[in-house]
Amino acid sequence: MQDFRITAAAPVDPILLAEAFDEHVADVVARLNAQDAETAASVVAHLPLERAAEVFDRPELARAGELILRLPEGLGARLLKAMSADRAADTLRELDPEDRTALLSGVDFETAQSLKLLLAYPEGTAGSLMTTEVVSVPATATVAETLRHIRQVEHSRETVYAILVVDPQTRALVRVATLRQLIIADPEATILEAAPARAPITAPADADRDEVARLISIHDLLALPILNARGQVLGIVTVDDVIDSIVAASTEDVQKFGGVEGVSEPYLQITFPTMIRKRAGWLSALFIGEMLTASAMQHFEDELARAVVLTLFIPLIMSSGGNSGSQATSLLIRALALGQVRLGDWWKVALREIPTGLALGAILGVVGVIRIGVWQSLGVYDYGPHWLLIALTVGAGLVGIVTFGSLAGSMLPFVLKRLGFDPASASAPFVATLVDVTGLVIYFSVALLILHGTLL
Amino acid sequence: MQDFRITAAAPVDPILLAEAFDEHVADVVARLNAQDAETAASVVAHLPLERAAEVFDRPELARAGELILRLPEGLGARLLKAMSADRAADTLRELDPEDRTALLSGVDFETAQSLKLLLAYPEGTAGSLMTTEVVSVPATATVAETLRHIRQVEHSRETVYAILVVDPQTRALVRVATLRQLIIADPEATILEAAPARAPITAPADADRDEVARLISIHDLLALPILNARGQVLGIVTVDDVIDSIVAASTEDVQKFGGVEGVSEPYLQITFPTMIRKRAGWLSALFIGEMLTASAMQHFEDELARAVVLTLFIPLIMSSGGNSGSQATSLLIRALALGQVRLGDWWKVALREIPTGLALGAILGVVGVIRIGVWQSLGVYDYGPHWLLIALTVGAGLVGIVTFGSLAGSMLPFVLKRLGFDPASASAPFVATLVDVTGLVIYFSVALLILHGTLL
Repeated sequence: MQDFRITAAAPVDPILLAEAFDEHVADVVARLNAQDAETAASVVAHLPLERAAEVFDRPELARAGELILRLPEGLGARLLKAMSADRAADTLRELDPEDRTALLSGVDFETAQSLKLLLAYPEGTAGSLMTTEVVSVPATATVAETLRHIRQVEHSRETVYAILVVDPQTRALVRVATLRQLIIADPEATILEAAPARAPITAPADADRDEVARLISIHDLLALPILNARGQVLGIVTVDDVIDSIVAASTEDVQKFGGVEGVSEPYLQITFPTMIRKRAGWLSALFIGEMLTASAMQHFEDELARAVVLTLFIPLIMSSGGNSGSQATSLLIRALALGQVRLGDWWKVALREIPTGLALGAILGVVGVIRIGVWQSLGVYDYGPHWLLIALTVGAGLVGIVTFGSLAGSMLPFVLKRLGFDPASASAPFVATLVDVTGLVIYFSVALLILHGTLL
Repeated sequence: MQDFRITAAAPVDPILLAEAFDEHVADVVARLNAQDAETAASVVAHLPLERAAEVFDRPELARAGELILRLPEGLGARLLKAMSADRAADTLRELDPEDRTALLSGVDFETAQSLKLLLAYPEGTAGSLMTTEVVSVPATATVAETLRHIRQVEHSRETVYAILVVDPQTRALVRVATLRQLIIADPEATILEAAPARAPITAPADADRDEVARLISIHDLLALPILNARGQVLGIVTVDDVIDSIVAASTEDVQKFGGVEGVSEPYLQITFPTMIRKRAGWLSALFIGEMLTASAMQHFEDELARAVVLTLFIPLIMSSGGNSGSQATSLLIRALALGQVRLGDWWKVALREIPTGLALGAILGVVGVIRIGVWQSLGVYDYGPHWLLIALTVGAGLVGIVTFGSLAGSMLPFVLKRLGFDPASASAPFVATLVDVTGLVIYFSVALLILHGTLL
């Protein structure tokens, strides 16, 4: 990538540059994202370091890694230091190991060490989300001393709204004070008197992103301290990082439910090979699973040959099973994600889904029977002399299949969770495939039972 | 509901009550949610008003409306006043009109008026999310005066981190200062000198919840001012309300994508009639749409009777169309929601989905042809003398159906958006139903073309 580096004297679009000075950072990021990488890098190169750092601090900035490599010699390293530590680590994560090492070699020892520490945490953990730039004071400090400290360090800290109060000896976290509490407190009071006497809400560095988001959300925190095993502060995850993370997780959930592997790039920037890679895997796996339907059909080929009329309803019946399953799965994925339902509650869920499935199946069954009866009476289609038995087969088949679909769809997220997978991997196509094969078997079994001696 | 009201002297579980005093509010809420309404109300009735208000300020508190009705005479009204205005309005929203009026009659005139104002905004708008308790100062104030004002009003304001600076004459919003900026500023400076000279990010009261969340998220705001047409402040939406709102929206998105109407209650608390109501509507609509497959099959009944072997692959081929459609829909729903793709970009998307669909269809087609060839060669199943043509029909059919599925699935969210619906209403079952009928027609057309003169 070294060849692509622009020089300090590179030409720059003056209108873009002027906008980059004046507009809201989020708008500047949107404009830079719309430019090619070289143009975007030339604009960044002409910005004051602080403003460039503001732009790079936005997780919405696309190609941050590529842009930083294109900057003139030395500027990339200075920018890394000026950025918030969590975003600097995210940017480095995008680079090849050799580019990463080259860039880090230009950064001072202390910053490089703290960035390497952040890079060591696996993606999706609290450690990878946190920033190491925290405001902390010893428990012996007064409110006035703390405010003085905040004023001194403010420019280099991502947030100053949460003040971490640590034990002067062990450096363990004892309390979290908010700036709000400091403002209204007596300046001569100690920080412990100003902060509420509750144990702080914290998380370990290996906590999951979803758990961090849940804690910040239910406790309305502005920042969540991340502690090591000895209770010392490693960093904090701020509320705005969590929003970005919740939005990303929500996208991933919908995509997964649609049967696509998570894609983080904006749709129009996904390359063709990536698009195929993210979709072909699941699609092929589902296709191979669905081949069992052909085997099931082959098993019933005699019945099919004798009663072709039965095939007319196969798509209708199969899709109803898949649809009811996909409803149940979507309900349970979210219930599990929000902690409304725990793994041990599976039987309570089963006991709710069976009557629900029976009722829904009965509704569809009645509609189906009426449909066949009306078509037959009006002469739209002739289902033969045994039309009533066929209608009954379709109706009873629907009750069985919708019940099975609801039950299977609701249990799948539990099974996945029990096996250690994300319950949200239970996509609608996955459920449909699972239900399709069994649905065919149920349908033909019902047909054999009802039509034996007449059509079959 | 008046009959259910507990008396001030009602017995209370002492352990629950002690916990309600000491624990984190979020944990107290979780405990109260697990109790029956009477027990929960008795605990709330014995808490100091401020603590009870903290509990009711949590949107996670279930049955807030029912609980407030059960409180002793007068306490409900005092609690409404002590709560944050946005949560008080949400709680009132849960009640019947007569209960709401009765409760509001116990509240002082000013509070009642501001709550009625909030209740007038439709659910899901910025107006319904906002709180009217804001910190605002005239543009002529100094930093020291502003800090003094904050200390005075702090106890009655949801957040003091965003200070709204208004024009002393017109009361229009001119700037937003943060507490952070005030802390580091010279106390004698004016508030306009301390706050950055950029126009504030704001939204109108009828802005959509998603738009509010997007603004707060991309601009990393702690609070978003909501303005009327004259630029005056109606209220603010705070970052923690937005997190709750994003989590709720994400649940709704997954449920909708699964073909269920949005359910806000925890899964195990959904009553049986609600469960059926939320699921039967879509399921029946899809069922009726899917009936077209039976009509399509009837149309091809001669072909079916002559070549029963073709029916074996119907479920396989139909589900592949539905699956590829559901992948495309999930990608586009999120791309539209995140603003990565606009309505006018539909043709760009179509130009990406057609080659993607062709490639994915080709992959599945090859797998399908190999499957038939292997089964035939190994003697697992005999597809007859024309097995190669049948394999070709299945392969070509898959290419056509997967391409159509990808295209239809990606265009559906655009069509819905164009028609004024939420693109997220495009559920996986909806797409599958849409693709199923066309899929059958494509399959049989391909079969007629390839097998004409041999099997058909």
